[in-house]
Amino acid sequence: MSEPDDELVPDQAVLSAGAGKSFNNLPGVSVVQVAERCNGLVIGNEETQLFGVSPIDAAQSGTLSFFNGRSAERFVAEPQPTAVLVTAENAVHFQCVRIVVGDPYLAYAKVSKLFDPARVSTAVGIDKTAIVHPDVLLDDGVSIGPYSVVGSNCRIGKNTQLGSHVIIDANCEIGHGCRIGSRVTLRANTKVGSRCRLSSGVVIGACGFGYAPSKEGWQAIAQLGGVTLGDDVDIGANTTIDRGAINDTVIGNRVKLDNQIQIAHNVKVGDDTIMAGCVAIAGSTEIGAKCQLGGRASVLGHLKIADETILNAGAFVASSIEQSGTYSSMIPAQPVAKWRKTVAYLNRLGKLFRN
Amino acid sequence: MSEPDDELVPDQAVLSAGAGKSFNNLPGVSVVQVAERCNGLVIGNEETQLFGVSPIDAAQSGTLSFFNGRSAERFVAEPQPTAVLVTAENAVHFQCVRIVVGDPYLAYAKVSKLFDPARVSTAVGIDKTAIVHPDVLLDDGVSIGPYSVVGSNCRIGKNTQLGSHVIIDANCEIGHGCRIGSRVTLRANTKVGSRCRLSSGVVIGACGFGYAPSKEGWQAIAQLGGVTLGDDVDIGANTTIDRGAINDTVIGNRVKLDNQIQIAHNVKVGDDTIMAGCVAIAGSTEIGAKCQLGGRASVLGHLKIADETILNAGAFVASSIEQSGTYSSMIPAQPVAKWRKTVAYLNRLGKLFRN
Amino acid sequence: MSEPDDELVPDQAVLSAGAGKSFNNLPGVSVVQVAERCNGLVIGNEETQLFGVSPIDAAQSGTLSFFNGRSAERFVAEPQPTAVLVTAENAVHFQCVRIVVGDPYLAYAKVSKLFDPARVSTAVGIDKTAIVHPDVLLDDGVSIGPYSVVGSNCRIGKNTQLGSHVIIDANCEIGHGCRIGSRVTLRANTKVGSRCRLSSGVVIGACGFGYAPSKEGWQAIAQLGGVTLGDDVDIGANTTIDRGAINDTVIGNRVKLDNQIQIAHNVKVGDDTIMAGCVAIAGSTEIGAKCQLGGRASVLGHLKIADETILNAGAFVASSIEQSGTYSSMIPAQPVAKWRKTVAYLNRLGKLFRN
Repeated sequence: MSEPDDELVPDQAVLSAGAGKSFNNLPGVSVVQVAERCNGLVIGNEETQLFGVSPIDAAQSGTLSFFNGRSAERFVAEPQPTAVLVTAENAVHFQCVRIVVGDPYLAYAKVSKLFDPARVSTAVGIDKTAIVHPDVLLDDGVSIGPYSVVGSNCRIGKNTQLGSHVIIDANCEIGHGCRIGSRVTLRANTKVGSRCRLSSGVVIGACGFGYAPSKEGWQAIAQLGGVTLGDDVDIGANTTIDRGAINDTVIGNRVKLDNQIQIAHNVKVGDDTIMAGCVAIAGSTEIGAKCQLGGRASVLGHLKIADETILNAGAFVASSIEQSGTYSSMIPAQPVAKWRKTVAYLNRLGKLFRN
Repeated sequence: MSEPDDELVPDQAVLSAGAGKSFNNLPGVSVVQVAERCNGLVIGNEETQLFGVSPIDAAQSGTLSFFNGRSAERFVAEPQPTAVLVTAENAVHFQCVRIVVGDPYLAYAKVSKLFDPARVSTAVGIDKTAIVHPDVLLDDGVSIGPYSVVGSNCRIGKNTQLGSHVIIDANCEIGHGCRIGSRVTLRANTKVGSRCRLSSGVVIGACGFGYAPSKEGWQAIAQLGGVTLGDDVDIGANTTIDRGAINDTVIGNRVKLDNQIQIAHNVKVGDDTIMAGCVAIAGSTEIGAKCQLGGRASVLGHLKIADETILNAGAFVASSIEQSGTYSSMIPAQPVAKWRKTVAYLNRLGKLFRN
Repeated sequence: MSEPDDELVPDQAVLSAGAGKSFNNLPGVSVVQVAERCNGLVIGNEETQLFGVSPIDAAQSGTLSFFNGRSAERFVAEPQPTAVLVTAENAVHFQCVRIVVGDPYLAYAKVSKLFDPARVSTAVGIDKTAIVHPDVLLDDGVSIGPYSVVGSNCRIGKNTQLGSHVIIDANCEIGHGCRIGSRVTLRANTKVGSRCRLSSGVVIGACGFGYAPSKEGWQAIAQLGGVTLGDDVDIGANTTIDRGAINDTVIGNRVKLDNQIQIAHNVKVGDDTIMAGCVAIAGSTEIGAKCQLGGRASVLGHLKIADETILNAGAFVASSIEQSGTYSSMIPAQPVAKWRKTVAYLNRLGKLFRN
C-alpha cells in the first residue's frame, strides 16, 4: 500500500532547523488520499478535506477519527467527526463520511502519517556546521543537521536524515531511509539497517560492562565488538545498547524499543520483538523473535528466551524460558497497612510449612 | 516573600561559558539578608557576614546552619556555626547568631538560593554560535548558550535562559524565567510554562510508543500531539516525556520530576505532584494532583490515580486508585538464604490453601 | 605489568573525528607482546602475529582466544585459534601457540586492550570548534573534540581526552589520563580523579532533588555542593550523579558504574564498589567499599550499606545493612496463570496466620 518514498518524509523534529510550516498552516488531506493509503471503501464525498485527527469520543469537525469498538449500535459520537475509519458492520451507525476497512486501528496507523505536519518539510542537505570526515560515503538525499559530527570510514544510505548534534564515530554504516534524531550517538563499528528511527539521546555502542576481578581491583576488558541493528528498527529516547565484548550485540529486523531501555553487551534480540519503556536485558542474553516485553521487565544475563514469549510489565526473569507463553512476577500495589502485614506473613511462611 | 526577579538569577551550570567568578571569591551574605528572605527574627548582630552553609552536625565557622530537630536541649553543635535558623523554643540552646523562624527547613529552602554561587553570574545574551531561526520571537533578557539550535515558529519568554547544546524544534513555546539546562531537547509542538527548570539530557516530546499489529509486523502510528508543561515545573536529568498520539501529554503546574523518569504518551499529571528518581508512567494514565511517587514506582497504562495518593518507593500500580492513601508492593531485601526459602514457600502456597 | 602510558591510548569513539584507520587495516599483535602484557609463558612461536580475538567455542584462525574452564581434557576447539591463553594444566590439550598464565580471564582482560583498534589513533589536540574559557588550565597532551565547551576556572590534567559535544561547566577539575566520552555533561564544581572513563550521555552534578513542603507548594532547596569522583572510576552511558545539597556527593576510587544508573545527592560510594545497569541509590545513602550491586538493585535514602555487601539483581534495600553478605528480594517470573494464583494466595495469608 505505502510506497517506499512515503516513509522518507522528514520528521520535523529530526530536521529541527529546517521545518518551515506551522501545524496550523497545513494543507488538508482528502478522504480519497486516506482511503488509498489504507485500502478503504468510501461512503460519502471522496473530495472532503480533513485537517487533522481526533479521538472518536471527543471528535471534532474537520477531522478524521476511527471507531475500534465491537459495536457502534449504541455509541453516539456527538459531535461527529468529518470522516471515520470503521468496519462494514458499524458503518451504518455513522452519518459522516465513512471509510470502510477491515481493521480500523491498523488503518489508522497507516494513514496517521498523512497528518504529520512534518510531511511538508523539505530536506536540508548537509548543514554547513556539520563536520563530516572527507572519506565518508554519502548516498543521494542524505541530510545532516547542525553541529553533527561524522567520523572516518562511515557510509550513510539514500535519503537518510541525521538531526542536529548527532555523533557518528568511525566505521559506522547506516542504511537508507533512516531518521536519526538529534543528540543520538553511534560509537565506532555500529551498523544500522534501513528505515530505522532513533530518538534523541540514544547511545548505541558504548563500552560493554566487562571486568575481571584482580588483586588491584576490577580490571576492564576491552570491548572489541560492535552493534548491529536490522531493518525497520525503532529506538526510543535515552535508550542505550552496548557493543559486544568480542562479537556484535545484535538487534533483529522490525524490533521496536521504547524509551530508557538498557541492552547490555552481547545480547541478541530476535526479529519483530517489541519492548516497552525501562526494560533491561543483561549481558549475553538471547531474546527470541516476536516477543513482547512489558514496561520495566528485566532479564538476567546469559539466558535464552523462547520466540513469542510475553513478559508482563515488571516481570523479572532469572532463568531461561524454553516454552513460549506469558510470564509475570509483579505484585500489584496495595494500601500500605495491608501490605506491611503481607510482608510480615511472608517472612514467617516457614512456620506454616514446618508444621 | 521572594520577589519574582529573585528566581531569575542564572544557574551557573546553565550558563556554562558565562560564569565568571569562582566559588571562593563569593561576596558574603549578611544575616539581615537571610532574615528578610525567610521572614525571620534576628537575635545577635544583623550585619554578620555568612560565606556559605554547613550541616548543623558538622557546622563550620563563617557559615549558616539550620536546626530542624524537635528539641535542641541536649544537642551540642561543636563547633557552632556563625548563624543558625531555629525555632523560638530551641533558640535558647545556641550561642551563635540566631534567626528565629516557624519552620527552619522551609526557611532554609527559601534562603539557600542566596548562597548559590550562580547568583553573581551575568546573562550572556545569544551566543554567536547559537542557530536561531529568524522567525523566532525572543522576549527581553533571553540568553542562549553555545551551539544551541532553535527551530522555526518558536517563542521564548522574558529572561528565560537556554544552556549550551539545547535543541528546540519547531513550534515550541517557552514561558518567562525558565532555565533550560545544557543538552535539553524539546521536540516540535512542546509548550513550557514559566519559571520551569529542565536539567541536562531531558528529552520532551519524543515519539510516543504506539504500534498496531499487522501481518507485516508492528505498524507505527504517527504521534500527532505535543507536550504541555505547566508553570514552575522542574525536570531532572535524562528524564523523558513523550508527545501524545492525538492530543498533548500534559504535566500540571508545580510538578517536580527527579532524574531518569519516563512519562509515556497521553499521560496527564496533576498540579503539585512530585516524583522521585526512576519512576515510570505508562501511556494514557492520569496521575492526580498533590500525589507523591517514591523512587522506582511504576504505574501501568490507561489508569487513574486519585489526588493526594502516595506511592511508596518501588510500588507497582496495576489498577486505578480511586481512594487517596499510601500504597506499596515493595519487598525489602533479605539475606539470600532466607529469601530463597521464602520464594520456595511462595511457590507452594497452593498446598496450604487447598488443605 | 601495564605501563601508565598504555592506559592513555585514545578510544576511537572518544576521538570521533580523529580515528583514521579502519578495523580491517590494523597491524597484527605478536604473541610475545601478548605474553609480556600478561606475564605469560609462551609455548610455540613467539613471533606469531594475531589479528583479533575470538571466543574459544567459535575460534577463528589468526586470532587469540582464552580457555577459562576447569578442565580442557574433553574440550575440543575446532577449529583452533592461532593462540590461546590457558593454565599450565590445560595447556597440553591445545595444539596452537599457548600462552600459559595463572588466571586466563584476568590475562585476557589485560591483553584485550592490545586488540582495540583505537590504539592506532592519534591525539587531535584542541578542535578549533571547541570553546574553552581563556582561564582554563590545560596540561600537556589534552585533547578536546568538536563543539565541546569548557567553562571558567577549570583544570584538565595531562593526556586527558574529551570527545565531541562535551560540556564542562565552571570550576571543574579533571585529573590525568581520563577519557570523557562525547555528550558528557559535568556541571559546576565537579571533581574527577585520574584515569576515569565517562561514557556518552553521562550527567554529573545536576541539581539534587530537594524540596521543602510549604503552603504554596514544594519549595526548591538550592543544591550548593558538588560531586567528587575518585581515580579509575568508570561510568556508563546515560548514568546520572547529582550534586550534594551542602557537601559533595562522593564516588570512591576504582568504582565501576554501568549504564543508566541514578545516584542521588549526598550519596557516598566506597572504593572498589561495582554496580550493574539501572541501579538506583536514593539521597544521602552510604554504600560501603567493595560492594557489588546487581542490575536494577535499589537502595532507599539515608541508609548505610556495609563494606563487601552483595545485592542481587532487583534487590530493594529498605533498611541499613550492617552485616556484609548477599541480599535479595527479587521474585523470578512464572507462567502468568500460576503467578496470579500466587498473588491471590499472598493477599489471603492473614487467614492462615489467624487460625
